[in-house]
Amino acid sequence: MARARAARPVLTLVSGDPTASPCFRPPTEAEDAIVEALRSGKHNGYSPTVGVLPARRAIAEYLSQDLSYQLSPDNIYLTAGCCQAIEVIISVLAQPGSNVLLPKPGFPMYESRTMFRHFNLIPDRGWEADLESLEALADENTVAMVIINPSNPCGSVYSYDHLAKIAETARKLGIIIIADEVYDHLVFGNKPFIPMGVFADTVPVITLGSISKRWLVPGWQLGWIAMCDPNCVLKEAQVDKLIENYMNITNDPATFIQGAVPQIIANTKEDYFNKILNLLRNSADLCYNKIKETRGITCPHKREGSIFVMVKLDLSWLDGIQDDLDFCCRLAKEDSVIVLPGGALGMKDWIRINFVTGVPTIENALERIKSFCQWHAKLEA
Amino acid sequence: MARARAARPVLTLVSGDPTASPCFRPPTEAEDAIVEALRSGKHNGYSPTVGVLPARRAIAEYLSQDLSYQLSPDNIYLTAGCCQAIEVIISVLAQPGSNVLLPKPGFPMYESRTMFRHFNLIPDRGWEADLESLEALADENTVAMVIINPSNPCGSVYSYDHLAKIAETARKLGIIIIADEVYDHLVFGNKPFIPMGVFADTVPVITLGSISKRWLVPGWQLGWIAMCDPNCVLKEAQVDKLIENYMNITNDPATFIQGAVPQIIANTKEDYFNKILNLLRNSADLCYNKIKETRGITCPHKREGSIFVMVKLDLSWLDGIQDDLDFCCRLAKEDSVIVLPGGALGMKDWIRINFVTGVPTIENALERIKSFCQWHAKLEA
Repeated sequence: MARARAARPVLTLVSGDPTASPCFRPPTEAEDAIVEALRSGKHNGYSPTVGVLPARRAIAEYLSQDLSYQLSPDNIYLTAGCCQAIEVIISVLAQPGSNVLLPKPGFPMYESRTMFRHFNLIPDRGWEADLESLEALADENTVAMVIINPSNPCGSVYSYDHLAKIAETARKLGIIIIADEVYDHLVFGNKPFIPMGVFADTVPVITLGSISKRWLVPGWQLGWIAMCDPNCVLKEAQVDKLIENYMNITNDPATFIQGAVPQIIANTKEDYFNKILNLLRNSADLCYNKIKETRGITCPHKREGSIFVMVKLDLSWLDGIQDDLDFCCRLAKEDSVIVLPGGALGMKDWIRINFVTGVPTIENALERIKSFCQWHAKLEA
Repeated sequence: MARARAARPVLTLVSGDPTASPCFRPPTEAEDAIVEALRSGKHNGYSPTVGVLPARRAIAEYLSQDLSYQLSPDNIYLTAGCCQAIEVIISVLAQPGSNVLLPKPGFPMYESRTMFRHFNLIPDRGWEADLESLEALADENTVAMVIINPSNPCGSVYSYDHLAKIAETARKLGIIIIADEVYDHLVFGNKPFIPMGVFADTVPVITLGSISKRWLVPGWQLGWIAMCDPNCVLKEAQVDKLIENYMNITNDPATFIQGAVPQIIANTKEDYFNKILNLLRNSADLCYNKIKETRGITCPHKREGSIFVMVKLDLSWLDGIQDDLDFCCRLAKEDSVIVLPGGALGMKDWIRINFVTGVPTIENALERIKSFCQWHAKLEA
């Protein structure tokens, strides 16, 4: 049974874009760096297709801080956001007939670009990859596997041990790892962020990243591909040349944004990052606690990073709700709250919630979800 | 025979990027618009995949000034430069098995994206398209033809009559026109710039454009696709939906650059454009006159627009120069002048010269080319 409610503002917990909330603004230092690069008049022309050298160098140094080896500027390719990084690397690696192993739930952009096979992430094991089933999926046409850590959509962060096991599995299968680390350093649980590149001695790792999330500027469209390849396995296979060739026919990030990258990285203070992490932790905790007190939905794994959680629907408790899509449609219609049906990510009867809309919105939205679940509770329950 | 020369600074006349010369700077108004959009804090997030509405509206109005019908914002799709506009439209139109008719000489980016057949541009007829041969090239798998006007690489500008004939030919063949107008309004001869969209009543026209060239900001990566389709032929074939779908998986231009577009268009003064056109005209004239006084090279068609001219080599006059590639390699080695071998554009024994490097560079480079040709002149000539 639907209920009639007074019209209320629509609250949306769908997007991967944190900037809708006024508390999530980029650091002033980053804005200043853009203005300076623009006003210099030196960055109005085309950039080299792989990106300008100072930006590649700055990113190489930034990423190398967490590694035991040094990335060189030549290992870095600038892309127009992480979206283009995915396009480039998948186009280069996944030739017709090949396949890539993708996590489920994961990020649909990968699926739109290649033939794939899904391996499961296991909710009750902190969304770790099901490595046993993964081994059975791979065949001679499998070229790579994708690991998204910190995880979109799960909000999980992988331990050193699990990452080591992933690397070992990939090595055994003879495939490389595409490490999607667009949410790098956005961790606020007990586990630190460990880049997959730490294990590049075991297996070649191609890391995808961006300033989008950590600096809260997804609209600036500045990402990168980093070849973590200390043993030159990818270099010998000329993957670097393939990337360069492909990038010759793609568009580039705006040159003055590239020009600002060294200053953006150098000038943004630790205080800024800590402030954002505190905001995220508070939002995530609020979200987790509100879900806990709501019958009909559960969150099997406490938030550790990124900006999302996956929430399981208990349809046995909810009267007449068919599935996740039905839940989302009715929630939107009756309570003006928009969340993503898990089916869109391969997780039927789950929903994905982002918690970066600011505390008042989260609180309000989850109150409405609670009231929605109460209204739709089975009478006999 | 090669000659030994003292080392001199390398002069390059290759790039399509005018911003290498200090006299070609973007208007201050455009820079100001970017800073304002950035500082507003409203444009840090993702944009809609087709672009932000105010920018689409501003471009629709800008283009409609030259048309007898009104483009709506819905007809405009923002892209990350004209390069991405090519990618999007070719990916959408050219399904496997189909082909596109491309001008020779033309812009290689098209050839990298689709199966194609070349139609010739005729130097002695102001680089007009050879429409008779074009008709014979098309078959049932031909979906579109590309017209680049003002022309890269020829520097020509098409008359109303020739554009009308092109439209009529396309209509007869049942194919649409992709009008690459990235050099729109960069004309400084006797002919005005007439957009292909003027003939959209005869045949559907998809116009590709950008702020790159007219505002001298190729590195800002802001272009567009405009559907000039007053009879809704493309709309009925759902080409608009196909474009939208494709753009869902591509990266976007930086949001704050999109946000600045209305002000960039509204605030840039006619004086600025006129100043740039005068600079281009002077450079082009200097270039043309210098070529005229140089035996061994000829320019069959006086410059009318864009930033390039095609120059023909007279190999019967030059001793021991094998072809255009040999000419360019030896010119680079002996005189440190870099020009593009025409072979790269399908025009063997031609070269392409850009004339936007500023008058001193042009003058110096063409002096060196003259001396190179004199040195290599056949003794009996």
